[in-house]
Amino acid sequence: MSNVNRILEDIEKLKNISEKCESGTTRIGFTSEYRQGVDYFKSRMMQAGLTVREDAIGNIYGRLEGEDKTLPVILSGSHLDTVRCAGAYDGICGAVCALEVARMLKENGISLRHSYEVIGTIEEEGTRFGQVLLGSKFITGDFSQKDLNSIIDSDGASLREVRSKYSNQEFSNTIKKDEEIAAFIELHDEQGPVLESKGIDIGIVNSIVAISWMTITVEGFAGHAGTVPMPLRQDALTASAEMIHRISDYTTTNYPYTATATIGKIEVLPGSSNCIPSKSTFTIDLRSGLMQNIDFLTAYIKELSDEIAKKYGVNISVQVNSRQCPVNMNTKLQEVLKDSCKELDYSYMDLNSGAGHDSMIMAKHYPTAMLFIPCVKGITHNPQEYVNTEFLEKGTNVLYKTIIELDKKL
Amino acid sequence: MSNVNRILEDIEKLKNISEKCESGTTRIGFTSEYRQGVDYFKSRMMQAGLTVREDAIGNIYGRLEGEDKTLPVILSGSHLDTVRCAGAYDGICGAVCALEVARMLKENGISLRHSYEVIGTIEEEGTRFGQVLLGSKFITGDFSQKDLNSIIDSDGASLREVRSKYSNQEFSNTIKKDEEIAAFIELHDEQGPVLESKGIDIGIVNSIVAISWMTITVEGFAGHAGTVPMPLRQDALTASAEMIHRISDYTTTNYPYTATATIGKIEVLPGSSNCIPSKSTFTIDLRSGLMQNIDFLTAYIKELSDEIAKKYGVNISVQVNSRQCPVNMNTKLQEVLKDSCKELDYSYMDLNSGAGHDSMIMAKHYPTAMLFIPCVKGITHNPQEYVNTEFLEKGTNVLYKTIIELDKKL
Repeated sequence: MSNVNRILEDIEKLKNISEKCESGTTRIGFTSEYRQGVDYFKSRMMQAGLTVREDAIGNIYGRLEGEDKTLPVILSGSHLDTVRCAGAYDGICGAVCALEVARMLKENGISLRHSYEVIGTIEEEGTRFGQVLLGSKFITGDFSQKDLNSIIDSDGASLREVRSKYSNQEFSNTIKKDEEIAAFIELHDEQGPVLESKGIDIGIVNSIVAISWMTITVEGFAGHAGTVPMPLRQDALTASAEMIHRISDYTTTNYPYTATATIGKIEVLPGSSNCIPSKSTFTIDLRSGLMQNIDFLTAYIKELSDEIAKKYGVNISVQVNSRQCPVNMNTKLQEVLKDSCKELDYSYMDLNSGAGHDSMIMAKHYPTAMLFIPCVKGITHNPQEYVNTEFLEKGTNVLYKTIIELDKKL
Repeated sequence: MSNVNRILEDIEKLKNISEKCESGTTRIGFTSEYRQGVDYFKSRMMQAGLTVREDAIGNIYGRLEGEDKTLPVILSGSHLDTVRCAGAYDGICGAVCALEVARMLKENGISLRHSYEVIGTIEEEGTRFGQVLLGSKFITGDFSQKDLNSIIDSDGASLREVRSKYSNQEFSNTIKKDEEIAAFIELHDEQGPVLESKGIDIGIVNSIVAISWMTITVEGFAGHAGTVPMPLRQDALTASAEMIHRISDYTTTNYPYTATATIGKIEVLPGSSNCIPSKSTFTIDLRSGLMQNIDFLTAYIKELSDEIAKKYGVNISVQVNSRQCPVNMNTKLQEVLKDSCKELDYSYMDLNSGAGHDSMIMAKHYPTAMLFIPCVKGITHNPQEYVNTEFLEKGTNVLYKTIIELDKKL
């Protein structure tokens, strides 16, 4: 069984390696704090007897050599970077638990046929450059030499400059070919409330959801709050409010656990308390494990916008900014994860990941799976993010059993 | 009959006395542009044979001496200041038409018993100090010496400093006692679409509406757009959207022409397209000619907020920031205005003013009435504000007949 004290020690140490921020942890890729975090994690990997290396973008690996060096590697881990004022678990617990699995293998004298590598990826969150999943894209080759100049941070520095200050290595693409990785398993806290609310130990991710981002622009007619009677108004905000209300209602009724529609941002012009709004712009974030749900919801929103435009005498434009298909996790790996849960007598359930993860990128190239552990109230990207020790332990045990099983089956 | 060319000339001239702005006219109280506008209007009053004076705050008066100097004065006019990038009619047309009435009286050899004064007030819009109706409050004594220090503009300059740079006069309160003013009649463009939509020449204002300003704060719970299923959300914006939709719907259905509810401003936190809103704050501007409508709507909003708070699992606070009773116009003066319309064979209707005007302040002290003339599409506080020449002419004729009639009756 896993030694949860080692896991907690690593999480606590990494939590405190942060640039100054109001509260929580801020450890953004390519900063000196990130280097400090990486140095700590490397030292722990070395203590565990792993062979440590770092690639040209800054992902780190700790390798437990397998018996058969011709076999592809089994990889597990997650990202070591954080958003600003983050909690201590997002990404970090996946890397730390994967390391604990390496220690357990060593301690239990288990020798794998495949090599096992613990990985800590860089810039998954995209806080530095506004480009998410940078580390995993480097591994798969979805990111290349030419992107070094075009990726710019908010201070105007290119990834080329930033990287060459951060790392002594020459830049070279060392893409892992599809046949070099036997499997990638990512443990992550759920970042949502489903497991906790259902009292389930482990979530087996079926797919990382499809996402569509839309912008709705409603154009009405400005007017004085006191002089235009209600029936003569073309109020952009009232029209928007009915849309937001009905989109949310429709999604909750028809897709309660199978799709989400989030309106997170709204801007109203002229934005004075005594002016009838002339213009309102809001965003819609649609997510679902099934692309057809996104398509149905998109069609509903377009129909609704026509109805609302007529009702309020406003113009409504619906702009689809991005439309990203779901990424399915490897079913064979999911089955092995489930078998491990059964053997350990842990409760588990299927669910989708509503958030993006390195596994999205990896799954396009290598057999990939994710397991989720519950986090309190689903709070994430927040210093209050918290994962109960019980689930760190259980998650690690599932990961351990799964790695051993995969080593036999792959 | 009025000479509309003189009216148009004055409006055109004043329109072009502006500080630099994107479009329209910007002539804010106590600026050199305001002084230039006042100088122009004074010169036109003098050309019309009026005796011109300026009070200590910057209101200007052009007096046509009456036969009986013991009688109180009949006053007509409106404000000469503008909002930023304003149209050419708001306030201005009331002052210009009142001056045309003085010219008509002179030309037609009509000698009144009462003195007639044309007035141009300062800082009605409140653009300079965020304090509306400054000029009229000075006249009535609702504003005094001590306010000079506490009223501060956005550059941090007090009204005391600003005024002393603008005017050579010593500051002194020269309040018009209630018995010094026989009547105040203010002509104004409607700033709303009612007269135009009904094809009516003249609006007789019954009251300036009651206004209540509220702030609604909705507190939910932030979350990741992808990881929290719809039924588990406490979404502050969705809750707000249903409130806004229903408040607007309820007011339109139950008080279509007798009350307004305007939500002009909304702020959402954290305000990211991929975050469930944790907090939303919006304003409500309620107006009605009857205080009881405001009270009914306020009660409805409070009940609704309880219902929505329960439905969405959010906290909602309803804060009433101000509650101002309606100000009724003098019924005798309204009758005289209506008689004038009848005599001239102009169509007219009763309506309320949804906007505040100097008449609000004056009516608390002196017999006061307002007449509205239609403006195109109700557009105001906008360079596109436009009043058809026909109505400038008709409004002036009504004002002229009314002044003569009042002189007999008062």
